[in-house]
Amino acid sequence: MKIKHIVLTACSLLLATGLFAASKPAEPRYVLVIHGGAGTILKKNMSPAMEAAYKAALKQALEAGYAQLKAGKPSMDAVEAAVRVMEDSPLFNAGKGAVFTHDGRNELDAAVMDGRTLAAGSVAGVTTIRNPVGAARAVMEKSQHVLMVGKGAETFAKEIGLPVVDPKYFWTEDRWKGLQKVIKADSIKVQLDHDQKASTLKGTENRDYKFGTVGAVALDTKGNLAAATSTGGMTNKKYGRVGDAPIIGAGTYANNATAAVSCTGWGEFFIRSAVAHDVSAMMEYKGYPVEKAAAAAIDKVGKLGGDGGLIALDKKGHMAMPFNTAGMYRGAITDQGKIEIKIYKE
Amino acid sequence: MKIKHIVLTACSLLLATGLFAASKPAEPRYVLVIHGGAGTILKKNMSPAMEAAYKAALKQALEAGYAQLKAGKPSMDAVEAAVRVMEDSPLFNAGKGAVFTHDGRNELDAAVMDGRTLAAGSVAGVTTIRNPVGAARAVMEKSQHVLMVGKGAETFAKEIGLPVVDPKYFWTEDRWKGLQKVIKADSIKVQLDHDQKASTLKGTENRDYKFGTVGAVALDTKGNLAAATSTGGMTNKKYGRVGDAPIIGAGTYANNATAAVSCTGWGEFFIRSAVAHDVSAMMEYKGYPVEKAAAAAIDKVGKLGGDGGLIALDKKGHMAMPFNTAGMYRGAITDQGKIEIKIYKE
Repeated sequence: MKIKHIVLTACSLLLATGLFAASKPAEPRYVLVIHGGAGTILKKNMSPAMEAAYKAALKQALEAGYAQLKAGKPSMDAVEAAVRVMEDSPLFNAGKGAVFTHDGRNELDAAVMDGRTLAAGSVAGVTTIRNPVGAARAVMEKSQHVLMVGKGAETFAKEIGLPVVDPKYFWTEDRWKGLQKVIKADSIKVQLDHDQKASTLKGTENRDYKFGTVGAVALDTKGNLAAATSTGGMTNKKYGRVGDAPIIGAGTYANNATAAVSCTGWGEFFIRSAVAHDVSAMMEYKGYPVEKAAAAAIDKVGKLGGDGGLIALDKKGHMAMPFNTAGMYRGAITDQGKIEIKIYKE
Repeated sequence: MKIKHIVLTACSLLLATGLFAASKPAEPRYVLVIHGGAGTILKKNMSPAMEAAYKAALKQALEAGYAQLKAGKPSMDAVEAAVRVMEDSPLFNAGKGAVFTHDGRNELDAAVMDGRTLAAGSVAGVTTIRNPVGAARAVMEKSQHVLMVGKGAETFAKEIGLPVVDPKYFWTEDRWKGLQKVIKADSIKVQLDHDQKASTLKGTENRDYKFGTVGAVALDTKGNLAAATSTGGMTNKKYGRVGDAPIIGAGTYANNATAAVSCTGWGEFFIRSAVAHDVSAMMEYKGYPVEKAAAAAIDKVGKLGGDGGLIALDKKGHMAMPFNTAGMYRGAITDQGKIEIKIYKE
């Protein structure tokens, strides 16, 4: 009896000190997570060539961000580098490849946030700034403001020497065709729909055309988190509409005490739920792990009638990528450089 | 012993059922709380006539909102009515009386949110809409969007028939003089300040000129909460800067499960802290009463280096009006019509 007791005590001690746990495979520590937008992305509608192109672009974005982290650069450098790759790719609804407004323009929004200082910057409704994510960062670092919109933001970007382009730079044939399709669908919808209020509020006609917002969250070697989001908004949007991407707390948030978050989806619902800040708040105030907080936040968006997804990364390298759409272009890389890329539901 | 025991038990029962509490005066049930901005408002700088004018305008705003509630109208009608009075008064930095941008324009922002449905609407950077709060409500009720900015928002307002004015309508001599004063102070500051980065980021030169944002939170007879905020932003602002007022979750938030919140102050810090949503989150996730959550949120703003205040009202008619500036124009009215108006710290 006595020996059994000693053995049991020894076992308990070993378990408590975690020596037995060493035999378990080590949990991956993610340092960069990206998304290229959530929406009705179905395998049956995707050619193998298109799928390969998306995967290659996501890989390139992950590698660009990871290179910054490997070099010991701040997480802000990593998220900016990753988002720039996706802004420059015509595959995503951000920068080149942005969707068109009703007036046939490309109006771009972007935001960044630093989890260490809670510093943040964003731009909305800009049409001449080549990389909106860079402008958002400049607003954070080189002005006393957080949000600049329209012509004012463009003037600021030009004054501080950011690359400015002709609005034609953002034109792509695919997105132009997308606009024509949505304009047609919307006009048919208005003719058919007798309950105009419901139609206006629900706006379902745009759901399938708005995926493509891009975002990144990163954790650097000093343990600091950062988030960035960039988008062309919603196809056929009117009246200077701005979605959640440039709204700190809605589409973008980062706090070292909790997580870095970037959202994609039907922006109006993400604003109303303050999704990115809500993930942070549930972690801080309810003690939720990042996965649970992220899932709960997307769940609330769904209950309101909206759809989309988000990426979130905490200080320990735990990440979450929940979405309630058919798919979300997404990828992650560990501190060891191991890459995971996914498109559809699993 | 037995008798003593019976007496004690009876006393405990009485206490538990609250019969003894009836002798305490009933707690006031607030139904409408308003603010006219927080800032360096000191009694020594205020003439008795000016003080009386502010108090009269706040009273008028409270009465306008209260009349809606008394008539059984929704809390959204009450907050809109109260904010309209303050937008129409040249005393406050919203609507007529808005401060000037660096370019000598009046760029207005406003937001509303419905606590029952979490529906929300806002406009930013508009220059021709007489009552921005009405435009924010129209965005919520008559479009599928939440946030519209600049010319687009103005086109929308015009199309749905909202009163549009010449930008000159917003011009007031006081604010024009304020702009000249700030431009002069800013240029002196730039000459004196060797640490330009700190100067740009801190922007202290504007602190004393930005009070005046207005807001209202209300509770209607059906138990629904609503919030509204309206502002002319920051004197001498540049580059299409937008503050927290039109940002759902930052300057404005309402949720029947928690509280309706409207903020005023140095907008950049309120955006970075997602103040209005944070009040709601601390109530929902930590079980804080409204007073504690509101105080904690303003405390966080202060720790970041910002200043300002907020008003918050919960479903039971409990309210809070914390601020970390010298003063905040504020007022509240109970369901019995009892009015309280204050300006300075107590």
